[in-house]
Amino acid sequence: MKYTAIGMSGTGDHAASSVPEMPVKREVAMTESTTVVEHLLECIASGDAEQAVTLYDTYSPHPADWAEYVEPMGVDALAQYIELVGASHALPFFEFVSFELQKEVLLRLSRETLADLVSQMSPDDRADLLDDMEDALQERILSLLIRAERQNIIKLINYDEDSAGGYMTTDYALIRFDDTVSAALEQLRLQAPKKETIYYIYVVDKALRLIGFVSLRELIMAPRYKLVRDVMSKSVISVRVNEDIEEVAKKMQHYDFLAIPVVSEDERLVGIITFDDIYDVIQEETAEDMYLLANLDADESLNSPVGRSVKMRAPWLLVNLCTALFVAYTVDLFSDSISQFVALAALMPIVAMLGGNAGNQSLTVVVRALALGEVPLRDNWRVLLKEAGVGFVNGMLIGGVMGAIAWAWYDNVWLGLIILVAMSVNLVVAGFFGSLIPVTLRKLKLDPALGSSILVTTATDVGGFLIFLGLATIFLQQLLGG
Amino acid sequence: MKYTAIGMSGTGDHAASSVPEMPVKREVAMTESTTVVEHLLECIASGDAEQAVTLYDTYSPHPADWAEYVEPMGVDALAQYIELVGASHALPFFEFVSFELQKEVLLRLSRETLADLVSQMSPDDRADLLDDMEDALQERILSLLIRAERQNIIKLINYDEDSAGGYMTTDYALIRFDDTVSAALEQLRLQAPKKETIYYIYVVDKALRLIGFVSLRELIMAPRYKLVRDVMSKSVISVRVNEDIEEVAKKMQHYDFLAIPVVSEDERLVGIITFDDIYDVIQEETAEDMYLLANLDADESLNSPVGRSVKMRAPWLLVNLCTALFVAYTVDLFSDSISQFVALAALMPIVAMLGGNAGNQSLTVVVRALALGEVPLRDNWRVLLKEAGVGFVNGMLIGGVMGAIAWAWYDNVWLGLIILVAMSVNLVVAGFFGSLIPVTLRKLKLDPALGSSILVTTATDVGGFLIFLGLATIFLQQLLGG
Repeated sequence: MKYTAIGMSGTGDHAASSVPEMPVKREVAMTESTTVVEHLLECIASGDAEQAVTLYDTYSPHPADWAEYVEPMGVDALAQYIELVGASHALPFFEFVSFELQKEVLLRLSRETLADLVSQMSPDDRADLLDDMEDALQERILSLLIRAERQNIIKLINYDEDSAGGYMTTDYALIRFDDTVSAALEQLRLQAPKKETIYYIYVVDKALRLIGFVSLRELIMAPRYKLVRDVMSKSVISVRVNEDIEEVAKKMQHYDFLAIPVVSEDERLVGIITFDDIYDVIQEETAEDMYLLANLDADESLNSPVGRSVKMRAPWLLVNLCTALFVAYTVDLFSDSISQFVALAALMPIVAMLGGNAGNQSLTVVVRALALGEVPLRDNWRVLLKEAGVGFVNGMLIGGVMGAIAWAWYDNVWLGLIILVAMSVNLVVAGFFGSLIPVTLRKLKLDPALGSSILVTTATDVGGFLIFLGLATIFLQQLLGG
Repeated sequence: MKYTAIGMSGTGDHAASSVPEMPVKREVAMTESTTVVEHLLECIASGDAEQAVTLYDTYSPHPADWAEYVEPMGVDALAQYIELVGASHALPFFEFVSFELQKEVLLRLSRETLADLVSQMSPDDRADLLDDMEDALQERILSLLIRAERQNIIKLINYDEDSAGGYMTTDYALIRFDDTVSAALEQLRLQAPKKETIYYIYVVDKALRLIGFVSLRELIMAPRYKLVRDVMSKSVISVRVNEDIEEVAKKMQHYDFLAIPVVSEDERLVGIITFDDIYDVIQEETAEDMYLLANLDADESLNSPVGRSVKMRAPWLLVNLCTALFVAYTVDLFSDSISQFVALAALMPIVAMLGGNAGNQSLTVVVRALALGEVPLRDNWRVLLKEAGVGFVNGMLIGGVMGAIAWAWYDNVWLGLIILVAMSVNLVVAGFFGSLIPVTLRKLKLDPALGSSILVTTATDVGGFLIFLGLATIFLQQLLGG
């Protein structure tokens, strides 16, 4: 019942707004979702709006859960369902429906429902959604909305989607600096249903410049007769509208903020960003490094069509092909030795594989530390030294084991010694290049993870083959003598 | 001045408590931090507590920033500083000082300051800190605290550090269900300075069982004369005290919660977890996958000593050595062909390297999708099909380019054809195993990223060599004929 009421007031929100604040138990068990969908389909078939609404109220689920139940209905049924119960009722859970599905559903709604639904969405979610649509559909939706809303949306769409502007909402609570605490609390009571958060409240002057900040906690604690300007904190940490969202996330994480105000170049308050938007940014930031380390485009996902995946991965593979040719050229230099002692061909992948693995271990540790800001520039050489050191010890260890195996396998002590030395040196190469490459990329103001795994693997392949086959060539007589 | 006052009341908090809610501008510029430290050192030398406090008040910085400025002072000076100004003043920024440094500083404090400081810390941060200390020191600190506090701390320490219990705080706001809204707001006013958050308020019965929930927003909106029990939501989404923290984070992200209540097995409310604790969990969750994909232990960091890094990485390298031997064995099967046509040895690393790269691309996309819960179990085969498809198209493309190069390089059309086919097939192998392995690991209820990159690389190495050298052996006469 509660949700419906809140939905009616048109403030449901993907973010930390009024709707998700009501943590109700998952009363609809997962196994029941089929039944729920079946019931809903019946309501749609019979056009029984009342019963559809009652169904929702009976379960009174969290909108996020309801979205999960109705998603399997498919685009058409979902659009019919929304058409049946109306935008106000549908809004709370519609904002939790997956982005792709949202777009498809909008295409199938009537003009009225579409306008209703979109105008009631929270400004930031709406802008994200429209941003991702083709221009014609975007225009169609914009034309349905009233003029003031339209301006607001166009403004939000036009911010870079990776900037603070692209993430902020314009639904922030505002109070007057010359109000009493008591009057301010009354103001907030009125604003509460319509704002993304009322827990952090910003104070602006007549030119809309941000001049103060007060938390609802502080307002509650303050004596009722005091003036807002005497209770508020006068210097506020804010971010610029064009600031990179990853920087914004770092700031919010650093200060443990629930929200942060966004200001324009001339210090005017233009929006706020709330903690729940940052949940995703924090996750994506780390995921981006993970993707770059695997030579993937950050935009790819498992749901990308084959053609798109091919297009995004192929360039990296072509780069790798170039470096692989360099590796092949290195091996080619030692063809004579290989043809005289063919065991070299069998053992050389071991040197390369272990080197690549150790190199990627170093690379990943260093990329992670750089992302967390743990490495001051002046400490670069210490990083190299540490990783090379780890490589040396592990190289002796793994090389020792492999040397013994090679000795036993081919009954050739020289072969064992050569592979021991080659692997030890190659794991030092791995540690060295595994840290040198990301650190250098950072110095060049590039992303430390960009293409680095290809470079590291090339270094360990070329290094490994050069040392292993080089030593084998020098000691070829001893090798052949057994 | 504000911060000091709040600090005095002993509620400074690492988390979203009263302190970080006051976003003040970084008035102390980074370049000034040396001067700040110098000033402080002078105060310590002259024992001038008043001036040290004044210095802080003059800048009135955010405690997180102040912590950054004073950290370079070093352990001893920092301990002396805290001793000088007292625990209440130091607490707000001390809770932002890095964990390692905190522990060192505590060792150097007097009994009184130590007891003062630790007793004023927020329960969850304190438990984390003590948890990480050696038993003797832990006992020493516990013995300094009063009995009631002691019980509380021991309880928190004993929860698994990756469970909800390990992350929760016991400082949550509580109201009576038979109070009026007006009385409840007055209650919150009194509780506000001492609680981690007063924005989500939980309602319990006499047996401390969680029976309801209300947000401060709803309280503010509700008519003052109403009873809490009529305003509150009666079914609350909560987590169990022993629930894995990653699951808790997923839940909070799913519902966009600011906080979530933690209950014991018998449904009693024992604590809450707030959004700022989850910031870190979300980040670590993704970073863990990234680490596992590079065969690293989640506990390692760049700051781990060489010995520890060696110990954590060596087991993975040994596992890889075993699989590498298998790869070597595959190559060994074709020694005759290689010794007769040694170009095979030079080209085979190309087949392996590109296969490994493409395999890791598939692997990373699938691991990420699994982590985000994007792959229902029944869709496993579609994942395999998609990735194999991408592998096929990219294989034809890259194989085509490489085939042409090989043809031109060795002036041998057969060699070009063989490498084209080998690379195409091997990139299908890469896509197939790159998705099969994580999906299978999940079915076995293991982490999809665990050891998977070693398995995928082994599959693409063995697969690549088998196909390339196998084809070369079949068509050896044609190859030798040119």
